[in-house]
Amino acid sequence: MSDTDHTRTVQRFVRREVLGREPELDSLAEAPLPLYAEFGRTGLANWWLPEEFGGLGVDVERGARMVSALAYGDAGVAFTLFISVLATTMVDLYGSDELRKQCFDGLAEEGGFCATLGSEHAAGSELANIGTTVRRDGEELVLDGAKAFSTNTDFARFVVVIARSADDPDDYRAVVVPRETPGLTVERRWDVMGVRASATYEVTLSDCRVPAGNALRGHGLRLLEIGLNVSRIFIAATAVGIARRVRDLCMDYAASKSVGGAPLSTNAVFASRLGQFEMQIEVMANQCGAAARDVDAIRERPDAAEELLRKGTLKSAIVAKMFCGQTGWQIASTASEMFGGIGYTADSAIGKLLRDVRYVSIIEGGDDVLRDMVFQRNVVPVSKRS
Amino acid sequence: MSDTDHTRTVQRFVRREVLGREPELDSLAEAPLPLYAEFGRTGLANWWLPEEFGGLGVDVERGARMVSALAYGDAGVAFTLFISVLATTMVDLYGSDELRKQCFDGLAEEGGFCATLGSEHAAGSELANIGTTVRRDGEELVLDGAKAFSTNTDFARFVVVIARSADDPDDYRAVVVPRETPGLTVERRWDVMGVRASATYEVTLSDCRVPAGNALRGHGLRLLEIGLNVSRIFIAATAVGIARRVRDLCMDYAASKSVGGAPLSTNAVFASRLGQFEMQIEVMANQCGAAARDVDAIRERPDAAEELLRKGTLKSAIVAKMFCGQTGWQIASTASEMFGGIGYTADSAIGKLLRDVRYVSIIEGGDDVLRDMVFQRNVVPVSKRS
Amino acid sequence: MSDTDHTRTVQRFVRREVLGREPELDSLAEAPLPLYAEFGRTGLANWWLPEEFGGLGVDVERGARMVSALAYGDAGVAFTLFISVLATTMVDLYGSDELRKQCFDGLAEEGGFCATLGSEHAAGSELANIGTTVRRDGEELVLDGAKAFSTNTDFARFVVVIARSADDPDDYRAVVVPRETPGLTVERRWDVMGVRASATYEVTLSDCRVPAGNALRGHGLRLLEIGLNVSRIFIAATAVGIARRVRDLCMDYAASKSVGGAPLSTNAVFASRLGQFEMQIEVMANQCGAAARDVDAIRERPDAAEELLRKGTLKSAIVAKMFCGQTGWQIASTASEMFGGIGYTADSAIGKLLRDVRYVSIIEGGDDVLRDMVFQRNVVPVSKRS
Amino acid sequence: MSDTDHTRTVQRFVRREVLGREPELDSLAEAPLPLYAEFGRTGLANWWLPEEFGGLGVDVERGARMVSALAYGDAGVAFTLFISVLATTMVDLYGSDELRKQCFDGLAEEGGFCATLGSEHAAGSELANIGTTVRRDGEELVLDGAKAFSTNTDFARFVVVIARSADDPDDYRAVVVPRETPGLTVERRWDVMGVRASATYEVTLSDCRVPAGNALRGHGLRLLEIGLNVSRIFIAATAVGIARRVRDLCMDYAASKSVGGAPLSTNAVFASRLGQFEMQIEVMANQCGAAARDVDAIRERPDAAEELLRKGTLKSAIVAKMFCGQTGWQIASTASEMFGGIGYTADSAIGKLLRDVRYVSIIEGGDDVLRDMVFQRNVVPVSKRS
Repeated sequence: MSDTDHTRTVQRFVRREVLGREPELDSLAEAPLPLYAEFGRTGLANWWLPEEFGGLGVDVERGARMVSALAYGDAGVAFTLFISVLATTMVDLYGSDELRKQCFDGLAEEGGFCATLGSEHAAGSELANIGTTVRRDGEELVLDGAKAFSTNTDFARFVVVIARSADDPDDYRAVVVPRETPGLTVERRWDVMGVRASATYEVTLSDCRVPAGNALRGHGLRLLEIGLNVSRIFIAATAVGIARRVRDLCMDYAASKSVGGAPLSTNAVFASRLGQFEMQIEVMANQCGAAARDVDAIRERPDAAEELLRKGTLKSAIVAKMFCGQTGWQIASTASEMFGGIGYTADSAIGKLLRDVRYVSIIEGGDDVLRDMVFQRNVVPVSKRS
Repeated sequence: MSDTDHTRTVQRFVRREVLGREPELDSLAEAPLPLYAEFGRTGLANWWLPEEFGGLGVDVERGARMVSALAYGDAGVAFTLFISVLATTMVDLYGSDELRKQCFDGLAEEGGFCATLGSEHAAGSELANIGTTVRRDGEELVLDGAKAFSTNTDFARFVVVIARSADDPDDYRAVVVPRETPGLTVERRWDVMGVRASATYEVTLSDCRVPAGNALRGHGLRLLEIGLNVSRIFIAATAVGIARRVRDLCMDYAASKSVGGAPLSTNAVFASRLGQFEMQIEVMANQCGAAARDVDAIRERPDAAEELLRKGTLKSAIVAKMFCGQTGWQIASTASEMFGGIGYTADSAIGKLLRDVRYVSIIEGGDDVLRDMVFQRNVVPVSKRS
Repeated sequence: MSDTDHTRTVQRFVRREVLGREPELDSLAEAPLPLYAEFGRTGLANWWLPEEFGGLGVDVERGARMVSALAYGDAGVAFTLFISVLATTMVDLYGSDELRKQCFDGLAEEGGFCATLGSEHAAGSELANIGTTVRRDGEELVLDGAKAFSTNTDFARFVVVIARSADDPDDYRAVVVPRETPGLTVERRWDVMGVRASATYEVTLSDCRVPAGNALRGHGLRLLEIGLNVSRIFIAATAVGIARRVRDLCMDYAASKSVGGAPLSTNAVFASRLGQFEMQIEVMANQCGAAARDVDAIRERPDAAEELLRKGTLKSAIVAKMFCGQTGWQIASTASEMFGGIGYTADSAIGKLLRDVRYVSIIEGGDDVLRDMVFQRNVVPVSKRS
Repeated sequence: MSDTDHTRTVQRFVRREVLGREPELDSLAEAPLPLYAEFGRTGLANWWLPEEFGGLGVDVERGARMVSALAYGDAGVAFTLFISVLATTMVDLYGSDELRKQCFDGLAEEGGFCATLGSEHAAGSELANIGTTVRRDGEELVLDGAKAFSTNTDFARFVVVIARSADDPDDYRAVVVPRETPGLTVERRWDVMGVRASATYEVTLSDCRVPAGNALRGHGLRLLEIGLNVSRIFIAATAVGIARRVRDLCMDYAASKSVGGAPLSTNAVFASRLGQFEMQIEVMANQCGAAARDVDAIRERPDAAEELLRKGTLKSAIVAKMFCGQTGWQIASTASEMFGGIGYTADSAIGKLLRDVRYVSIIEGGDDVLRDMVFQRNVVPVSKRS
């Protein structure tokens, strides 16, 4: 199937299963929602997985368009369906063949989930502060610690834990831990402001034991950076979908509302706002595309794994998340005043869209953190400036 | 009691009864909340009512400070406790002595509520489109229509209805209707995005009959404008309270959070944001003060009622609502990114404050409507420019 | 030579001939400046012209990078050197072979200029109001009218005039007029706020006679739209160059300035601003790239001329100009406060950069006009939405 | 004469002597301009000087309105005419009676000027870094150093120099130095971006000797803070005047320009912008008023000098400068796109107004410095929060 076909399939799924169910999707209903199984039936679950494991091997550029189409329906649904990519990217590039097989067999087919356990309460923006430890005990690795925010964990097949080496405080590991491993405990689900169709948990690891072969090759924080290159682009792409939804919501409202005796859609202020939205949406989508092509270009190289270890975080990916988060928020924020009193009630979806889009600028690195990272890595060294 | 004393009483009330109860106040719990009765026990309920009816006769300038102090705790609580002022101002200035007595006797003492029924689904920003009618039938007035958004109505003692004269489509009346009047039906309570401690209703009037003396003197839309001069300033003042709460929340967070090994409160970006917030809060408070003094100066005149009929909407009052709504939103919006992942969860109050402050720019005239009004009334006529 | 080579040549030219000459370039010195002849010596003059006429046939994507590199030095120089592309694009696609030969022979080699006479005083944002007329008189076309803003005209080899048909008020023509044609009079050069190395004129046409074959094929306003697709992208690209210059100016300043005893470059607020600039610059450059590829993709088609007549204005091109103009202004505006008192004097280049970048949002369609155009053409028709 | 009378006198002066002379006022013409003598003939020169010295003793609240009226004409003219207040305030409050007499006799009558020498190249935002020294030599004080930015110095009667004590590096003095004192040398006049009717100089002091009695009582930096309370409010007030001029320029333009066949003044986008401007202007003016009343309230106290030494910088004064600078810039920046191509030429005043208003956010403390000051002084100490 072509890219267009995949995106169309997603759009059909969204129209059929998602649109109109905002109250339920916004209710923090028990996870995972039945509609994820429904998405699995489209054959697109975990679309990025390698074909050798039954995946579709969709690249990031095409994947970002699918994410936007999902997020047009609901950003929490989109987030749930793509965030496994963070863990699978690390496993795919840096796991042993055996581990890959163990992790990926049936994952696409069954529409399974996986999770990444990175951030901690004292290590949100500064992951180097991670306190979770991993130590070797014979043929096993033993993990202990507490992780603050981890999406999908409760119903994941496996999680990838970022932990500090108990032997060397400067070394970090990324370790695959099956969900059912004793000691891996979901402490609570967070009550979140938006993307409430997704489920994010606080998790503890207590004497969690896995075979030594479950460790991925390479420095754990670097591996996380590499996985984030993809997930940050997909997060940015949700902002594109939300922005399109906001725009269409405005157009629908304007068709039914009159101002000064004329339809709102003929009002110059309204037109000016929508023209600006459309301009911004085009730029958002192009930045996602440019960032995705950067990742895809490396992934296509035979030495992709090594090249990514050299490069770590790609600037275009964080730029995509920053820009789309900021611009998506501007759009939703402006629109939240455009529906009169109704826009302040649950009868309008705008309040939900506003709350949803906020997550883009918060997860996987807030803008303050990312601005500083861009400055240190891409402005201070003259040769790295755009 | 002096102004400072009243504000201190409010602050004590907020600390004792409001702070820390955000989850309940944000839950759309059954209205009215028991804490309103508690507020009544401070002796400050309906603080603006004339002393002859047992009120404290607090002027708008001092009242705005009380509102800010209430909104520091919860904007929905503040809104519930002051919005009666819209109806009472119209009755006080344009009701007969008998009607005033009937409406106000015991109102302060009992901490009772009243409501205004103005906006309709096709008459939100353009009140001249009002479809609710009032007609004379012998010694009675008969009201019919549907009103979209009306706060406090369900538990109000009386409501003031803005209606179009059935005889003269260019004439509008403001009519006092006791809550228990047959035909006055609360259809539903709105599920709102913020200020969820308050209760706003959709209401219908069907063959509602009241004595002819319940009509207020003067053109109904003009009377509404006059009442809005006060309520808009109080709405603006809630933004001041919310902004102060956001600032203090940031400071509390910064005391416990470290960045790069140093407390967040010593971070230059954080300091810069908080310095900007403080600057904006000072300007917001001063604009509320200036607008309040404009109203108070007229209210102190012996011909206040006539002068207000001549002036109608005061520019400084709508400017206060516009400016404080825009600036409060900027502050809450900026702050909503300052708490990391926690700020996206219900463990932080910032999400609620963001949703609450949004109402300032929406109710009693959205900014698009008010910008146009300011342009037509205060820019086109050269002599009216600031 | 590869794209990179061209850009490097431009960068060398800028370092050698442009940087450090801001006072002169900002002085409205007599046009054309001697440095344009110097640019001709690099062999890059009119780089986009077809190879059959001695040009380099550089596509828009590569050309946009050259423009950014030029504008890094001086936006007025860049503008002067690329704006001929508007006229040559129309002639290249819609002129007869004879006319193309006549216009283009030697143009690259000599580093010659051409101009477009479009906007008029009563037809700036609304070109359909054009009052300049063209009428047939035997084998000649006769043009009469007045044109408000036309860059390079005084020293152009030829101009393309957009005129209304004297016979059919709904028809517009684009006609090539050699500079020395009697009746083509430069009335005055404008004293402009920025891009002062360029020269923009007010021009009149009085009984200007050219051979009938000088008319280009197709509707004049459509042809102008097609030419603007390229020039708008180049204008957007100047904002990228200016923004990079602003960023580097800030970094140079920060290296020499200390705040609180530490270098400004280690200040968190400074880092945050520069990180944001860099993010924005990346997005600007990517939008220019995306828009350029859209034009190039059509230009490579065998039916490019017909396809462009069908499409007219490309959305991505106006989006590039809008976005880069807005964002370039934000960057320069923010930076204009970052140099203390020195930044307010002619000792700093920031004032000039601020004035220069303003032109991006003004020429070839202000944002108000373009927002409305995007709304009408790309939002109202559902199928055209991004 | 009443306040209104003074402001009317200023408005007449502006209409007669200032409006329409923008090219000259923007030309960096030789200072002082002849029109300052003309202003002296209105009797309003140095309007704030005490009546005992022939001044009018106008308070800051009324003075701020006069400044706005002057800046409506030209901000550089306004700045030149009021900036003496910085020096005279220090002398008036902290100079000996003899010194006051010496400084003030005839100053109002003659329309003379005075200047303050504060900032240095390495001590712009951080005045504690001042390198200029003052030492005692018998009955004389000897000053040495270099001052970066000082307005009016060349044609001042006297200057107040802020210098560090040669004996105690933690002590700073404010010393009156007559202009003709040997060793006080004007090195150059700055070529500035805006307010070009004013003249700002770089100055050196070399073995400048004055009687010991020329030192003002109190810590020099504190005295400067006290003087800045007034001058910052007046600087803020210039932004109000500029913003009003921008608004009126927009209205004049809209009267003559049509869009889509209708006058621009009936366009909803235009109306929306002007409504927003008017709202902002009202808030700016009210903040200036509030800050001015704060200063005036202290100045009316019998212990004004001591109270000001205790308080130093008043928060409302820096808030006024910050807010009016930011908002004035927003207004001028938005407007600079509203005049089409003409707005980019010297035929429109908007470019000059944009350049002029920029100074508000730069002189007497940039916003970065002031934000940090507000944070440290008014947010960190809980009791100082608004």
